[in-house]
Amino acid sequence: MKCILIIGDGMADRPIKELNWKTPLQVATKDAIDELTRRGVCGIMDPISPGIPPGSDTAHLAIFGYDPTKVYNGRGVFEALGAGMKVLLGDVGFRCNFATVDDNMVILDRRAGRNIEGARELGEALNGIKLKDYPDVQVIFEHTTEHRCAMILRGKGLSHKVSDSDPDTAGVRIYDVKSLDDSPEAARTAALLNELTKRFHEILRKHPINFIRKTNGLPQANAVLMRGASTLPHVKPITEIYGIKALAVVPNALVKGIASFVGMDQIAVLGATGTVDTDIVAKAKATIENLSKYDFIFVHVKGSDNASHDGNIQQKIEMIEKIDKLVRYILDHVSLDETIVALTADHTTCLGTREHAGDPVPVVIAGMGVRKDGVKAFSEIDCAHGGLCRIRGADLMPILMNYLGKCQKFGE
Amino acid sequence: MKCILIIGDGMADRPIKELNWKTPLQVATKDAIDELTRRGVCGIMDPISPGIPPGSDTAHLAIFGYDPTKVYNGRGVFEALGAGMKVLLGDVGFRCNFATVDDNMVILDRRAGRNIEGARELGEALNGIKLKDYPDVQVIFEHTTEHRCAMILRGKGLSHKVSDSDPDTAGVRIYDVKSLDDSPEAARTAALLNELTKRFHEILRKHPINFIRKTNGLPQANAVLMRGASTLPHVKPITEIYGIKALAVVPNALVKGIASFVGMDQIAVLGATGTVDTDIVAKAKATIENLSKYDFIFVHVKGSDNASHDGNIQQKIEMIEKIDKLVRYILDHVSLDETIVALTADHTTCLGTREHAGDPVPVVIAGMGVRKDGVKAFSEIDCAHGGLCRIRGADLMPILMNYLGKCQKFGE
Repeated sequence: MKCILIIGDGMADRPIKELNWKTPLQVATKDAIDELTRRGVCGIMDPISPGIPPGSDTAHLAIFGYDPTKVYNGRGVFEALGAGMKVLLGDVGFRCNFATVDDNMVILDRRAGRNIEGARELGEALNGIKLKDYPDVQVIFEHTTEHRCAMILRGKGLSHKVSDSDPDTAGVRIYDVKSLDDSPEAARTAALLNELTKRFHEILRKHPINFIRKTNGLPQANAVLMRGASTLPHVKPITEIYGIKALAVVPNALVKGIASFVGMDQIAVLGATGTVDTDIVAKAKATIENLSKYDFIFVHVKGSDNASHDGNIQQKIEMIEKIDKLVRYILDHVSLDETIVALTADHTTCLGTREHAGDPVPVVIAGMGVRKDGVKAFSEIDCAHGGLCRIRGADLMPILMNYLGKCQKFGE
Repeated sequence: MKCILIIGDGMADRPIKELNWKTPLQVATKDAIDELTRRGVCGIMDPISPGIPPGSDTAHLAIFGYDPTKVYNGRGVFEALGAGMKVLLGDVGFRCNFATVDDNMVILDRRAGRNIEGARELGEALNGIKLKDYPDVQVIFEHTTEHRCAMILRGKGLSHKVSDSDPDTAGVRIYDVKSLDDSPEAARTAALLNELTKRFHEILRKHPINFIRKTNGLPQANAVLMRGASTLPHVKPITEIYGIKALAVVPNALVKGIASFVGMDQIAVLGATGTVDTDIVAKAKATIENLSKYDFIFVHVKGSDNASHDGNIQQKIEMIEKIDKLVRYILDHVSLDETIVALTADHTTCLGTREHAGDPVPVVIAGMGVRKDGVKAFSEIDCAHGGLCRIRGADLMPILMNYLGKCQKFGE
């Protein structure tokens, strides 16, 4: 038995007026998904716990079977992993933004205009710099997408118990980083980061890329905002927990980072972009091509979340219809007698608020052994009547692995 | 977005023969509640966990979002809060009864006849007394209702780890209080309470009120039974957790105490009695009048529980119909586009056994964003088919606050 798990990021929603009080899943044309639903057992799932809006990081940790309230201490380290950076136990990771500040370090634009040509070079200019008071600390800095970067501090005597320098708003000075506990490590890390903020500013303001930006009337990428300090938790990878070979078909940096952290192999799929224009059939083909080599393949589609954050109703529906094509390809190329196919979302993202919400998500699991429940359509409303009833994100992996006979018996 | 949460205390029940194997909720006329149900998402809720009969205190702590297995160590302190007494962290609270004992401290009547004229004066005679061996300990004593009182011990070196003096039955001597752990604080508190039992008896037997009672052939209120020693847990109030302003429309002392403990403001409503004769429209009006000033209003109706404990079928049905009037008034005066309206019970109270039971309770949540599920009537049976499936008491508050956008995202 094999398993393919498909996650439509932020695919679940609330009923909205523009869709005559239906959800995007209720109005999208999705014959393959509904066929999967009729052949499966359905339910609703609280990624974390009822009512709690999950982040993409915590939701995926939960869906891979970990208790995020125990293993999660911040996103920075996952951002770095997602950027393909090598992260070691003990490293402190950060999410960073290039930003525009004035001479008093007051933020004019938190994203320095968002799409920054030459951002990679700016990142390279900051990577590897040494602070003379912290000669033992390595600063690893990398641009990821648009204005976003990831940073790792590596060295002894560091702590993730530090506040953000990013005030999450423009018009104020970059915050001084403060220690969040009484340890000397936190105090040292906070001081180091404040020093680093100054050094980054000095380097960036004189960088040729910023001269070009000035000439072109673009906002200067002359500062770095830091947030989400965190370290890697010690966890057993899913490959060890269940004794499986696992593959992730995920272009999105963050989710890729988490998949890699929990032990999944990765493949790059040409045309899979992690945005709404992704080549969904290419992902489906890559999944099927690799199925003989793996027990578990995780396929992630990000575009549905992007569309939700943009409040773009039509695009969200189209992304669901794209996911339907993925499901169609998979249904056409696997036998449900030999492969468990599951579909869900990592969280609800509301078109109305353009934010993640704590509402549960629908889930379907089809394949040999599942107890078909008569649910006919895949939606937030229909699946609530399904045979899985209401489960939690961290329940999903054991449920899937149980069908594969990979869940260890507890007791004799 | 605002939220009104209505609790019908002990409103849920089991099917009974007298109602042709239906529950009171199934036979009551409740058009407004059923309208709310059709406009909402429904489910069943285990206040604590499946099968566990909750107390009113633990049920409400759970419904306000706290894990009662972690924050609850006894009812005494909530009884004191409910009586309007000021309770400080470290205080040890008790529930007390006036009782009738003979000269050997054998209990003749655990309630001294139940309705005790002059009970307030008796309570005042005990309040503030000092024991010479415990000069640093303040004894704060107050009559609440009928034969019931609340007591607080305030001072250093006290513990709530002590047994009850109340044997919960007549015909036996008042129990010696014993320490429940090996701490010197518990030993000291137990000794103090045994001393106090004697002093209370000496004071009460000579009190003029008891001479009058003797003359009138009434049982002497000549002793105090103590039980439920407890301390306040350290918790963050809901106002801080969710950043909301919250109001409780609750006449019942205990529930009022808990609401106040978790950070809710209180208003007294003329005619709201906490019994079956409560003025339900007055409560509804007070709710609507205060809605502009608060994010969350909690309305509690006690009579349905009283009727259940009395085994009074007709009165329980009438109380449900009274709650229907409350819901009607609210539906007539709020827009569900702007206000989430939720209705549930804190626990099942069985007309058959006249006791709390561990059966789940029905719950409905109506308002903008909820995923309507097609359930047409509010009952223990119908709501089990609803879109919330089965939740726990401690899930309700995050679920409601999620609709208000007041639940903090966990992760990024």
